[in-house]
Amino acid sequence: MRLHNYWRSSCSWRVRIALNLKGLAFEYVPVHLVKDGGAQHTDAYRALNPMRTVPTLEFTHEGRVHFLSQSLAILEYLEERYPSPALLPADPLLRAHVRMLSEVMNSGIQPLHNLSVAQRVKAELKGDDKAWNAYWIERGLTALQALAEQTAGRYCVGDEVSFADVCLIPQLYAARRFGVDLSPYGLLTRVEAACAGLPAFLAAHADRQPDAVPA
Amino acid sequence: MRLHNYWRSSCSWRVRIALNLKGLAFEYVPVHLVKDGGAQHTDAYRALNPMRTVPTLEFTHEGRVHFLSQSLAILEYLEERYPSPALLPADPLLRAHVRMLSEVMNSGIQPLHNLSVAQRVKAELKGDDKAWNAYWIERGLTALQALAEQTAGRYCVGDEVSFADVCLIPQLYAARRFGVDLSPYGLLTRVEAACAGLPAFLAAHADRQPDAVPA
Repeated sequence: MRLHNYWRSSCSWRVRIALNLKGLAFEYVPVHLVKDGGAQHTDAYRALNPMRTVPTLEFTHEGRVHFLSQSLAILEYLEERYPSPALLPADPLLRAHVRMLSEVMNSGIQPLHNLSVAQRVKAELKGDDKAWNAYWIERGLTALQALAEQTAGRYCVGDEVSFADVCLIPQLYAARRFGVDLSPYGLLTRVEAACAGLPAFLAAHADRQPDAVPA
Repeated sequence: MRLHNYWRSSCSWRVRIALNLKGLAFEYVPVHLVKDGGAQHTDAYRALNPMRTVPTLEFTHEGRVHFLSQSLAILEYLEERYPSPALLPADPLLRAHVRMLSEVMNSGIQPLHNLSVAQRVKAELKGDDKAWNAYWIERGLTALQALAEQTAGRYCVGDEVSFADVCLIPQLYAARRFGVDLSPYGLLTRVEAACAGLPAFLAAHADRQPDAVPA
């Protein structure tokens, strides 16, 4: 498998964690989102991913090469194809809770601070992109924590790592990057601390990727 | 089941279609997103859905009342609990394609023209919210069609209705509403036409809901 991705992209990071948790080796293919206008906008990359986002997972199945994008779709695919260790609980209601929490981040927060959106806020609307990003992250984390209070154990849903934790870690990194005060989110930062020491999470961290740029 | 929702909300509409396709009766509970500042912002609604979005599916399971939000999480729950008729193919790769297409809309397009975002573009950034919405929809539909070309039959993925079609119909309605020219999207409007005559889609249409406001 090859993962076309970028060190600091939340959605890339989610998939790196999941691949690591499932013990799946992958080749890291960096896609620089900023340099020279962004490698995601080249014709070569658009052929793999018309949405021009990262990540894209490239893999061979029954002799054919496939390109799969959209991080949650990739996580679901990995879960079905490589079910152990499971990143979704067995119980249908708990599975629903994991997906609800994941989607709060995947559709409710991250798209609004996505690079292409922040760029448009700044360039077209002459807005403060950092303040824009922080607004949506704070609003989303407040809801996320209220929902997680219903289900959290050691992790977001019970005592097993799930998609929700996989989404949470990059989301909190982005929150700090855009200046969000995380002190009201004690439950979320407690879960983050529980994940931080796990080898799969450590190896997937943005700052440890080959294309990472030191602060 | 009770569906807390709004006639013109894309995400509400997705869940209505899925409930209809699966033959599940539900009580329609309108949540007016605009009147008096928006019923989604009341304390009563936030208790059901801290993210203050629609829809929220309310149901009883083993004697307890549950509130589930995030339309894709709801679709996945319905699919697991009421598997027939299936809205995901059996083949893992095709399932992945359905989810990829669905997420292009769920996380790549709809969040950017969500009411709360358009309101902020207009009120805070003094931007043209309709132009903002149209920009993201056009960008997303272009990618969506390129991806759907890999898999489409009568519907977005093969010849069976899936989550992708459930997401597509409200997305194209929103596109027209914000003035997007759909003539470049022949594949997508052909799939739309194939869905339009199905009873489950007809009954879920925005304009046929009890809280619909005639144009």
